[in-house]
Amino acid sequence: MDLWLKEKQIENAVMTYKIKETLHIEKTKYQDLAILDTYEFGRMLVLDGIVQTTIKDEFVYHEMITHIPLFTHNNPKKVLVVGGGDGGAIREILKHPSVEKVVLCEIDERVVDLSLKYLPEISSALNDPRCEVFIGDGIKYVIDHKGEFDVIIVDSTDPFGAAEGLFNVNFYNSLYECLTEDGIFVAQTETPIYLPQVVKKVFHDIKTAFPITRMFMAAIPTYPGVYWSFTIGSKKYDPLTIDENKIKDIDTKYYHKDLHKACFVLPKYIKNLIG
Amino acid sequence: MDLWLKEKQIENAVMTYKIKETLHIEKTKYQDLAILDTYEFGRMLVLDGIVQTTIKDEFVYHEMITHIPLFTHNNPKKVLVVGGGDGGAIREILKHPSVEKVVLCEIDERVVDLSLKYLPEISSALNDPRCEVFIGDGIKYVIDHKGEFDVIIVDSTDPFGAAEGLFNVNFYNSLYECLTEDGIFVAQTETPIYLPQVVKKVFHDIKTAFPITRMFMAAIPTYPGVYWSFTIGSKKYDPLTIDENKIKDIDTKYYHKDLHKACFVLPKYIKNLIG
Repeated sequence: MDLWLKEKQIENAVMTYKIKETLHIEKTKYQDLAILDTYEFGRMLVLDGIVQTTIKDEFVYHEMITHIPLFTHNNPKKVLVVGGGDGGAIREILKHPSVEKVVLCEIDERVVDLSLKYLPEISSALNDPRCEVFIGDGIKYVIDHKGEFDVIIVDSTDPFGAAEGLFNVNFYNSLYECLTEDGIFVAQTETPIYLPQVVKKVFHDIKTAFPITRMFMAAIPTYPGVYWSFTIGSKKYDPLTIDENKIKDIDTKYYHKDLHKACFVLPKYIKNLIG
Repeated sequence: MDLWLKEKQIENAVMTYKIKETLHIEKTKYQDLAILDTYEFGRMLVLDGIVQTTIKDEFVYHEMITHIPLFTHNNPKKVLVVGGGDGGAIREILKHPSVEKVVLCEIDERVVDLSLKYLPEISSALNDPRCEVFIGDGIKYVIDHKGEFDVIIVDSTDPFGAAEGLFNVNFYNSLYECLTEDGIFVAQTETPIYLPQVVKKVFHDIKTAFPITRMFMAAIPTYPGVYWSFTIGSKKYDPLTIDENKIKDIDTKYYHKDLHKACFVLPKYIKNLIG
């Protein structure tokens, strides 16, 4: 059978991946979920038709969304991940010896269950004793846990549908309250290639809530446009003024200390976009 | 009509673009050539089914393949472009006031003719009096012009078919001979995402011919894998040790002085690949 996943990256540009096997397809309470095995990228998690993570390239996203804020914070002990039910961010966070506890707050239990079953390379750290998995609404969790976390990572789907509430000023203000007094948060904030106005709005919304706001980029092969933005909101620590020579070498495939500041140097069109 | 260009980026991953209009299609002496108008990227030049350049994103490639070597060289006066018949590299090169003459050596006259007709935003600098267009074989041209050029830019198609001869040690040795004593060259060298072994081989081949070899990256939305490598071979100037504060601000959309060194900071998997 000549089976292909078609992913509409934007209205008039569609990426397609040849499928070896459909391992699981279901409609959960929140979204259409599929685990597919592809020829080029190995097994992948697909939500509402959009590729979320793949065995071949997941390291880029999971390393960059975690190590940038964790190496910027002076001593991260308690970390919250909103979304990220595949567990990849948890695996990277637990490489930091200072971390005593990490909470995963994922709205869709089936993402966690099926990642544990089909994507163990990504999800297995969810079983670590330092990790607590909480199934529930991230917005409510953040409001209910004021001043608790040193680092918060918003590892969400796109700002349409289920994750829409994770992309606005109210939520960023709640994150501010949920952080400790020197806390820092990061979110995946889409691609300036296809969604420049979303990138611009999100950056400015975060800027209204946090004194230090910075954007960095990473190249994630299976994300639309590949060139992906992440935005930091921080109360005290600035990723651009830390001493990167103090960054310890950890087991990574993308992140390393020389990249810690270089990934914040944006092309002129993106600099101009976020002004 | 629901018309789409399907571009096989690698065996099992295919990108597709919705087409507004097919402006021109022909089989030239060297390749299948098409000028298509697309909804997402505007007009594009397609050679042998592969997108070469588009109105929307051409600035990334053309700025990065030119301004990095030209701002690394102390005083570039005479520049050669091998390939690049669309003229985009010429447009960027002529933004440098030190440049007195630039030669475009393109094997396929039809690329030049049709770019001038359908892509004037990219090609119009080909009419500049400082630019000489030479239609012929780049390998032979380089051998015939020893010690002539301060900067050479190899703006070729992929290392299969027509451009195969532009990706090997013999050609890199010829480039060395074609450069002045402090000359520098750059080539587009494919994506480490889909073709890691090609990237590795090309880097090592260039390293055997030049004392200073450096790789930098840029995000080109319509190139397979987006995250694209370029390799510098230089006799004297090192892009990493120049004083970037001396770089003058020029009219660009991607390149600026803070990016001059940052784009050479490679993710760990690429650093390890080229070792």
